[in-house]
Amino acid sequence: MNTTHTRILMAAALVCALALGTTVAQAEDALPSWNDGKTKQTIADFVKRATTPGSPDFVPVAERIAVFDNDGTLWSEQPMYFQLAFALDRVKALAPQHPEWKTTEPFASLLKGDVKGALAGGEPAIFQIVMATHAGMTTEEFEKIVRDWIAAAKHPKTGRLYTEMVYQPMLELLAYLRANSFKTFIVSGGGIEFMRPWTEKVYGIPPAQVIGSSIKTKFEMRDGKPVLMRLPEVDFIDDKAGKPVGIHKFIGQHPIAAFGNSDGDLQMLQWTAAGPDTRLMVLIHHTDAEHEWAYDRKSSIGRLDKALDEAQKRGWTVVDMKRDWKVIFPFAR
Amino acid sequence: MNTTHTRILMAAALVCALALGTTVAQAEDALPSWNDGKTKQTIADFVKRATTPGSPDFVPVAERIAVFDNDGTLWSEQPMYFQLAFALDRVKALAPQHPEWKTTEPFASLLKGDVKGALAGGEPAIFQIVMATHAGMTTEEFEKIVRDWIAAAKHPKTGRLYTEMVYQPMLELLAYLRANSFKTFIVSGGGIEFMRPWTEKVYGIPPAQVIGSSIKTKFEMRDGKPVLMRLPEVDFIDDKAGKPVGIHKFIGQHPIAAFGNSDGDLQMLQWTAAGPDTRLMVLIHHTDAEHEWAYDRKSSIGRLDKALDEAQKRGWTVVDMKRDWKVIFPFAR
Repeated sequence: MNTTHTRILMAAALVCALALGTTVAQAEDALPSWNDGKTKQTIADFVKRATTPGSPDFVPVAERIAVFDNDGTLWSEQPMYFQLAFALDRVKALAPQHPEWKTTEPFASLLKGDVKGALAGGEPAIFQIVMATHAGMTTEEFEKIVRDWIAAAKHPKTGRLYTEMVYQPMLELLAYLRANSFKTFIVSGGGIEFMRPWTEKVYGIPPAQVIGSSIKTKFEMRDGKPVLMRLPEVDFIDDKAGKPVGIHKFIGQHPIAAFGNSDGDLQMLQWTAAGPDTRLMVLIHHTDAEHEWAYDRKSSIGRLDKALDEAQKRGWTVVDMKRDWKVIFPFAR
Repeated sequence: MNTTHTRILMAAALVCALALGTTVAQAEDALPSWNDGKTKQTIADFVKRATTPGSPDFVPVAERIAVFDNDGTLWSEQPMYFQLAFALDRVKALAPQHPEWKTTEPFASLLKGDVKGALAGGEPAIFQIVMATHAGMTTEEFEKIVRDWIAAAKHPKTGRLYTEMVYQPMLELLAYLRANSFKTFIVSGGGIEFMRPWTEKVYGIPPAQVIGSSIKTKFEMRDGKPVLMRLPEVDFIDDKAGKPVGIHKFIGQHPIAAFGNSDGDLQMLQWTAAGPDTRLMVLIHHTDAEHEWAYDRKSSIGRLDKALDEAQKRGWTVVDMKRDWKVIFPFAR
């Protein structure tokens, strides 16, 4: 074969390989927002081991499952979980239809702008707020409400859309894993139907690969048209010991890589650590007060305490956001 | 470019296209076990419409979701659901550890070989049998029990492995849809963990694309190792009105194609019919008593009555197994 033939074939092979995504993407190119160092190297080594045919650590494509927490792992979670901001906005929007809220807690405090007072009621208060704002409509109606809110609502500190407050290094990591034939899943304590309307566009993760907490739905005929009504009843809490349960229920396979940032992710990481030999457990440690937030053991949101001890004890990878990331948000590039 | 160049490029393009699976597979080649006629044509037309760029019926790849019932749609379900045969075998295997079963129904009848007597207790009896055989172990232990059984147990009539009693035309249909970039899901009333250990090998459907009924699991540390214990408590019944709920929960998108065979699939087909404009609703009608079984409106297993009326009323596609299929089982080819 002459040189021209060879060039044509190589070009064709390259196009084909790019399209297939089976080329082993190199970490140096694929993770430009990660500083060189031990953390980036650990991730790159893991991917290389898992994807090198013939290596004793090789993992078949069907088993390349990576799971990611969402709040604090893929996007920010301060000064309050973004879904709580959504719920509070919904309380305001729905208030005219609920005159009784003016004198009923936690709504009364909320409507006076006293978020702290409203949340002083703890979990029961949050439960009431969530059910009042997340149930009582069809799944289609709720999806539209989420789409409209996420397209317009702005973060109180940055003034950015919430979907802009995702972590650039994690977007690169998601793409890098997928380029190496990993299937990426979200496993979040947040609401599954709060995430699904936008995760494909923002993270490249389709609805069927989003696992989260949920309320029950009920199939009904409404004017001859089938709908699913959202009921004010908890179906599943995908947090802490619920995360391995959710992974097993929705994925049915052991992940080989897990990424979290708080004690709510401890059991997900433990479950991953108990899986196949080639595996990677990662915690994102919020250390960059200048560009994002710095918090861990004493934070009421995203507390990282027991999981940090366990990571140190077991040699799991801890991402130090200030040290390991060049940039936090895509808009800051 | 000379002829040799062109040939090389065409060969490279073909390899690439095959690998990508983006060639529009032709029904004539892809469905050899389907007789030519209206049914095959309807399926082929639907796939062509959904995958032809520029067509008003074109469906983007991300929305090409096809859902399949399992019992009676992908494999046989007579003379009893295969999972029930599994449960009965498990009762026999576990009997030595349960001397009390000798005098307790429904176990006593079962152990005497009187299946009909045991099942006379109706749903509560079945519930007892399922819980006694499906709960009380880790998910890993249960998976091994299923794998061992499915690899060895033989069907009482054909003497074949249960996984050999899958429908050849449906295997072709699954592959044909996937070759046209559809994602294929099982949505079955059967147990999710009874199916997942073998669906990938038998149907090419990975665990995360299997939806079914489930019992609850609980995360626990056992000798320092995390396990999920299977509890004798129903988590979700993925049947009838539960099927749209399961589809929404696990997939989070409307299917555009649904395949069932009984009244248990009616709501799944209604839900699909209420989705995007390009859609296909199909019922498998068991009409071939010679090569499989013939049953519909009066069968206690896989009853097809209301759904058949609805199919006729709404113009859904009904596969007549005797008329539309050249062969039923792969081993009969």
